[in-house]
Amino acid sequence: MPDSTTSTLREVELSTAAAAHAKAIELGKHVLRMTSAAGSGHPSSGLALGHIVTELMYNRMRYDLANPFNKANDRLVLSIGHAVPIVYAAYADLGGAVGKHPGDTRPLTVDDLITLRELDSVLDGHPNPAEGFPFFDAATGSLGQGLSVAAGLGAAAKLDGIDKRIYVIVGDGEAREGQVWEAADFIVDHKLTNVTVIFSCNGHGQASPVSPQQNAEAIAAKMAAFGWQVIEVDGHDPVEISAAMDQINAARKPVAIVARTNKGWGVDLMQGKNFHGKPLSDDDLKQALGELDATGVRLHAKAGESSTPSAPKSKRRNPADQTIVLPPMERSLNRVGHADVVASKKLSTRVAYGVALAALGDVDKRVVVLDADVSNSTFSNMFARDHGERFLECKIAEQNMISVGAGLSAAGKIPFASTFAKFLARAVDQIDMAVISRANLNVVGSHAGVSLGADGPSQMSVTDIPYFRSMTKTLDEHGVAVCHVFHPSDAVSAYRCTELMANAPGLCYLRTHRPTAPFLYPVDEVFELCGCKQLRTGDALTLVSSGYMVHTALAAADLLARRGISVHVFDAYTFPMDASPILAAAAAAGRTILTVEDNYIGGLHGELAEQASAMKDGPRVVGMTATRIPKSAKTAAEVFDYVGVGLDQIAERAVALVGG
Amino acid sequence: MPDSTTSTLREVELSTAAAAHAKAIELGKHVLRMTSAAGSGHPSSGLALGHIVTELMYNRMRYDLANPFNKANDRLVLSIGHAVPIVYAAYADLGGAVGKHPGDTRPLTVDDLITLRELDSVLDGHPNPAEGFPFFDAATGSLGQGLSVAAGLGAAAKLDGIDKRIYVIVGDGEAREGQVWEAADFIVDHKLTNVTVIFSCNGHGQASPVSPQQNAEAIAAKMAAFGWQVIEVDGHDPVEISAAMDQINAARKPVAIVARTNKGWGVDLMQGKNFHGKPLSDDDLKQALGELDATGVRLHAKAGESSTPSAPKSKRRNPADQTIVLPPMERSLNRVGHADVVASKKLSTRVAYGVALAALGDVDKRVVVLDADVSNSTFSNMFARDHGERFLECKIAEQNMISVGAGLSAAGKIPFASTFAKFLARAVDQIDMAVISRANLNVVGSHAGVSLGADGPSQMSVTDIPYFRSMTKTLDEHGVAVCHVFHPSDAVSAYRCTELMANAPGLCYLRTHRPTAPFLYPVDEVFELCGCKQLRTGDALTLVSSGYMVHTALAAADLLARRGISVHVFDAYTFPMDASPILAAAAAAGRTILTVEDNYIGGLHGELAEQASAMKDGPRVVGMTATRIPKSAKTAAEVFDYVGVGLDQIAERAVALVGG
Repeated sequence: MPDSTTSTLREVELSTAAAAHAKAIELGKHVLRMTSAAGSGHPSSGLALGHIVTELMYNRMRYDLANPFNKANDRLVLSIGHAVPIVYAAYADLGGAVGKHPGDTRPLTVDDLITLRELDSVLDGHPNPAEGFPFFDAATGSLGQGLSVAAGLGAAAKLDGIDKRIYVIVGDGEAREGQVWEAADFIVDHKLTNVTVIFSCNGHGQASPVSPQQNAEAIAAKMAAFGWQVIEVDGHDPVEISAAMDQINAARKPVAIVARTNKGWGVDLMQGKNFHGKPLSDDDLKQALGELDATGVRLHAKAGESSTPSAPKSKRRNPADQTIVLPPMERSLNRVGHADVVASKKLSTRVAYGVALAALGDVDKRVVVLDADVSNSTFSNMFARDHGERFLECKIAEQNMISVGAGLSAAGKIPFASTFAKFLARAVDQIDMAVISRANLNVVGSHAGVSLGADGPSQMSVTDIPYFRSMTKTLDEHGVAVCHVFHPSDAVSAYRCTELMANAPGLCYLRTHRPTAPFLYPVDEVFELCGCKQLRTGDALTLVSSGYMVHTALAAADLLARRGISVHVFDAYTFPMDASPILAAAAAAGRTILTVEDNYIGGLHGELAEQASAMKDGPRVVGMTATRIPKSAKTAAEVFDYVGVGLDQIAERAVALVGG
Repeated sequence: MPDSTTSTLREVELSTAAAAHAKAIELGKHVLRMTSAAGSGHPSSGLALGHIVTELMYNRMRYDLANPFNKANDRLVLSIGHAVPIVYAAYADLGGAVGKHPGDTRPLTVDDLITLRELDSVLDGHPNPAEGFPFFDAATGSLGQGLSVAAGLGAAAKLDGIDKRIYVIVGDGEAREGQVWEAADFIVDHKLTNVTVIFSCNGHGQASPVSPQQNAEAIAAKMAAFGWQVIEVDGHDPVEISAAMDQINAARKPVAIVARTNKGWGVDLMQGKNFHGKPLSDDDLKQALGELDATGVRLHAKAGESSTPSAPKSKRRNPADQTIVLPPMERSLNRVGHADVVASKKLSTRVAYGVALAALGDVDKRVVVLDADVSNSTFSNMFARDHGERFLECKIAEQNMISVGAGLSAAGKIPFASTFAKFLARAVDQIDMAVISRANLNVVGSHAGVSLGADGPSQMSVTDIPYFRSMTKTLDEHGVAVCHVFHPSDAVSAYRCTELMANAPGLCYLRTHRPTAPFLYPVDEVFELCGCKQLRTGDALTLVSSGYMVHTALAAADLLARRGISVHVFDAYTFPMDASPILAAAAAAGRTILTVEDNYIGGLHGELAEQASAMKDGPRVVGMTATRIPKSAKTAAEVFDYVGVGLDQIAERAVALVGG
């Protein structure tokens, strides 16, 4: 394992432009070889970044090669993920450490490069820290997300008082993604001058040249209009690159370096030919390697002045992990001036989330809350009141909010990102990427389902449960689900589910509702991962619901009781769920389960049907879901009826099932 | 029903600033009354738009009040959807027609306004044409999407040679959404000068003031940097507004009008108080109505000069609907130079989609294709070659691409929007809104599942099937599913599924794959909505799969046959699916179904489990899905094994099920 002075030694080597050119060419040759060996990849995109990556990784970044987990390391977010082989090459040349856990690393070697994209290699096709390359903080490859991740890392460093810099490399074609501009706003709003973005403008997309809207001039003009200090450079001139980086620390605004690069730099086979996403054949590889050598000879004449030596690296430890325990709910209600609720026993799940969030802020400093200009609807504003420094208002830009959360998580924070459940649909790709990154991210969607009534379908989430549930049977390396869904029916369970989220690893999704509802549980009720609760006992049928619909299910049970039909009622408050209590109860109650939910299919009914139908002689599972696109109505009950899950409809279906 | 000269008559009334002020106040009072009656809504946001809406709807827009379906009408896209009551008020005052179908409309009256947000009202809480307000083309309310919808409407008008203008009103806080900037790029790229955006800058978001990044100066600077002509106005000065609109037609660039507005204009109770999303109580309502009247009196003195009279409206018909029939597959293969495939009988589903798309372009001029810079991967470039004028390159901006598609659909086009399946996750909210709008939108995701191998998880879609399937049991007013999913296993089915999509209403999702695969069907095989195909007959077990995994399922069946186990094999190529053939076959073959899919849960297994478990004594359904987050590997087979759906794993599970 190289000692921590390795990077210093390397710097000396690159104190001249000639040395930087030589290194860029050396790395470029690795890129050509490894992609040809892999039989796939994007060599031309890598060559475009040769000089930028050389300046960053050899001269500029302050980082501990022996410990990529060192929190004090400067970080690189490669938003243009498909160019990753050039970073792998540099890191292998430097002998940086790779591995999935701090205790279990080894130096990457040049010989390892040939394993690119193999099943058991740490060198995944795109940046993927979870597979053993922790030099990166987040998976990238779905374009346009890196600047937001960097914003999260920058915000965390600022909170922790760590003097580090986050560099991000964004492609020009990639700059078309709106999320890049959401992130540009966010970084200015929060004065994150510790984030530096480098745009690589090579002019070529995958299918065609980039639009004039994304050429270097346009990107420079846009970034200036967004409030950034812009410096334009030749992306293959080590002196210009280094001079630009020298200006970063003095700048009052965040700095954007707009670099003109050449896709396939140094290789005539590729340059200016819109050559994308193809490795070279053996013959072409020979020729290309020769061309790169020739380019090196041509450049050797023009040796430039020295680059800035990098500052010494510092070392810090991540805060040790600790279980988070919320105070008793009464105390937390008092704390936010809701003492009355203890008596009235009525509160919406979204307010209960706010109550829990405020208390979480007291008990754990790692908790950071993000919102998208609806903190007075999600009630994350209860956290903001007393923990303003850890509340990051993202404004109306959900994609950026989620990726910032992924960045905060990578920096050891416990982020909670809240908005309307419907608007989280804006950030599904970002949530997917956070899961791939194994981010510890808590996402909270309020006004879920159709119970908000009057505002109409544009504010109602009916596909969120199927989406989030789809990840709850996917397991991480410890056999734990990569996603937990929480769908509490009352304020007590919402309070405790928020506590469970704070402690659960990976992605957690909490679904809260607008209407005020009575408590269904004593304030000291205990809830757990994969659990469910039985609220009523019966003998004819087993009624299962979750969230606000549980109250309708209970009302249906009352209606049925008056007709002499007694039913079990279960509250399925989380996925993954151990459904054995439900399945066992059903076996003794007509062998039939009726599920009720105010979202589209693939949720609770899917979960129980998948489990029951996989059994030998499992119970029958009949589902009631929203079968119409919802619309506005004055009350939740009206919309329930409209979409087919109204109180009377549930009771009728139950009677039919019991009768037939 | 008012005759078509009504709007002209109205214009005369508003030929002075005093008249415009009076009208804005009259409309504002309606807004206050209707939201108070509804008990919810956003009166302050409506008041901010009083003068802008008055100028547009009374003086500027050329439209047929008696026929909102008239294709020649100028259109208004209210991106800031929650402000909709002010538009309802103006339209009722003008007596514009409402209704779900051209044949079945009635004039909206001022008395109707009081029904805002009621279950049986055409006045939904946010713009929602599907509920009977076709003055709008698309549902809005999830912010930041309107400019993209307008871009689609503008592109369609350009293709149809219709001289019309699309006006879009965007809020300042809303301009934080990255999609707004994706749309700004798209409109400049495609020279859509028939689109005019008006930013309403009132400085107030929901939870807090808008960021300085979204104040009027910042938005003006950004739009200029994005290549637009920017005009700044006082949003409550009829003369300034009218003068700005007068400059639109002469402008060489698309015009952005940045209007400084006042949230709660004319009502001290609301102005400058970040008053958002609350109606007024009865007492406050009285006071507010009085304040608006007083404001009117104050303004009456300063009567301004006349506004520009609007041009005469024209009339056109929508093209009659017609069934689209593709030519025989051989001819279409020839057409694109793939004659060899007829003999080799090997082609990837993504190329087959391209072949079908090119042929569709020949047979129906309404077909328009969108792509996000990956047309050489999705093979939509086969369409672009011969139908370039109907191919709209959206570059790397998926959210905008989907909403542009919704706009094109509203204008009578048949849009196909293609990119990698994984990157469609970027646009889930936009797809949700297109469904709410009842848009006839075809979405195509390539490189689906994990079979692409080497590129790794950032390029693999494993949650798309659960998401799209969740909408396939939701029915429109004709009892047809609002979403159809197509997941073809070979080139023949991909070709025919593309034809089915072109004819199916609502949202269609086609999932294609990267690997080349042999034909499983004769080229003249017939496929249909809700169908499935039996490929093998057996007696021990029923194996069901879809897409590329069908080939693995067939290989597993061969392995099992060698071990003396004969199984049914079904290709479940679409959702919704009539599973009765599968369920019937299973009843006679061990009463057990094994599903195999390379995505997360909630897909094929969920579909069959939901159907089987709802039956009395239905067959057992056991599912195999991807149970690990995928990673790079050289071959599809390696990744199948890694995530738990490899050939041997399937065979083993089958043996266990047959044995046990």
